[in-house]
Amino acid sequence: MRETQILDRIRKLAARAPRSRTLIQGIGDDCAILRPDARHDLVFTSDFLLEDRHFTRAIYSPADIGHKALARGLSDIAAMGAEPIFCLVSLGIPRDLPASWVPSFYKGFLALATRYKTSLAGGDLARFEKIIVDVTCCGRVPRGKALLRSAAKPGDAIYVTGKLGKKKAWLEKDWRRNRRPEPRIHAGIALRRLGIRCAMDISDGLSLDLHRLCVESKVGADITAHLSDDALHSGEAYELLFTAPPRLAVPPRIETTPVASIGVITSQHKGRVLFQGRPLAPLGFDHFAGRD
Amino acid sequence: MRETQILDRIRKLAARAPRSRTLIQGIGDDCAILRPDARHDLVFTSDFLLEDRHFTRAIYSPADIGHKALARGLSDIAAMGAEPIFCLVSLGIPRDLPASWVPSFYKGFLALATRYKTSLAGGDLARFEKIIVDVTCCGRVPRGKALLRSAAKPGDAIYVTGKLGKKKAWLEKDWRRNRRPEPRIHAGIALRRLGIRCAMDISDGLSLDLHRLCVESKVGADITAHLSDDALHSGEAYELLFTAPPRLAVPPRIETTPVASIGVITSQHKGRVLFQGRPLAPLGFDHFAGRD
Repeated sequence: MRETQILDRIRKLAARAPRSRTLIQGIGDDCAILRPDARHDLVFTSDFLLEDRHFTRAIYSPADIGHKALARGLSDIAAMGAEPIFCLVSLGIPRDLPASWVPSFYKGFLALATRYKTSLAGGDLARFEKIIVDVTCCGRVPRGKALLRSAAKPGDAIYVTGKLGKKKAWLEKDWRRNRRPEPRIHAGIALRRLGIRCAMDISDGLSLDLHRLCVESKVGADITAHLSDDALHSGEAYELLFTAPPRLAVPPRIETTPVASIGVITSQHKGRVLFQGRPLAPLGFDHFAGRD
Repeated sequence: MRETQILDRIRKLAARAPRSRTLIQGIGDDCAILRPDARHDLVFTSDFLLEDRHFTRAIYSPADIGHKALARGLSDIAAMGAEPIFCLVSLGIPRDLPASWVPSFYKGFLALATRYKTSLAGGDLARFEKIIVDVTCCGRVPRGKALLRSAAKPGDAIYVTGKLGKKKAWLEKDWRRNRRPEPRIHAGIALRRLGIRCAMDISDGLSLDLHRLCVESKVGADITAHLSDDALHSGEAYELLFTAPPRLAVPPRIETTPVASIGVITSQHKGRVLFQGRPLAPLGFDHFAGRD
């Protein structure tokens, strides 16, 4: 297939997905065009999904790859308490893929995009030796209401969504969830409406991500819950980490997602995390350590 | 270096570049945050720059790669008549690069960003076998004034900026220009202020890009100028292609950039380009044809 034919195909697939009224030009020009309003702030994130780094072709179907490439970005949008508007996809693919690969990739991608009303507004397409995807997502949030890593205050309780550390007895549904993570978009919006100001997503493991939150907020954290090593350090959870002032009643479920209190923000040991009274090393997934 | 150290370094470099007042959160959270106004539309584009596909390490310095990765996106912003606001950079790098590589890449990138007042607001970082870059650029344009591929009208004159087809006698400065293309930001803004409504950038060669413009505008084009095969088909020009109604006086220079009239838009042969009366095949750079 020539590039023009592939682009026409993608454009037709994208046209079936919902389109935000604020997106006045999608695929087809040098740029996508958004008509913003002054009541909302816009949030932006870009995330790679790379073959043999984040997935393998043996385990991930084209639709899995499409799903996960978008889920990574939507998880960041969720962490801001924002609702997604549109995304751009840069896709590099080898020549040896079957002709059905690209449509299947976009079907997986657009199924998730449709669920969260995210328009596919543009991107890039190139030949490359391996499958490489970079997705940029844009979301909107009422002005000044974005959930920030830097907004934690001493005395805040620390919470996580979902169930941490279930890796030891991985079942088929866990594998499926790893290939098709569900971004916590509804939970993020609900938290923002509840009055939460501080959140981030756990993409590299609780110990590393909570450490980052402490650095940005210039606070310490004390984890008091009994958590396994796996719960403390394993990455790819796509859950939300957030803090709430003590006066704010956080329900045990946000939408359909369980929420657990795991500790408290402190004014001591700024930028440090304690686990049951002892310093906890940020051992989560470092994208530059480990294997190449 | 660990990821955190590299990110700190990038953040410090990015902090030196100018920051748009509308960008209220740059690097450091799950997303960058933009506070838009209702007087402007926002435009968005994503572009890959891939090792051994768009450049080789033997010929391009790290700073060249940084410059060119951003220039590709800014060229699309220029083609909309927009001014850049911010960008996101996803960068994949092999383990065997020298420690100076990443800072040098960002210095080349940020030198160009600074020239066009573009903030580096975020992105992603990963290990990969080859150098892969994906840059997303955001610009703004007064509401409803973006230059569109789809806005050409029969009777419009067709223009290009710069000097097409100088490849046969490549000099040192041409090589340099190819490694460090200058996006036509000022020319794009000047064209919009002049009353131009239709433009695109020539990134894949005039014959292919003019064909795309004709398809989007549902018009034909008749190239009457004497142009070489190289001027007609060679890619990577980073010049602007635009059309103007006959009543609009287009000066021979836009800012410091020469402008040449090369033909006329017609209502016949919709989606087709004629060169001196004969159909011209769109032979420009197809990202999916040719070598892998």
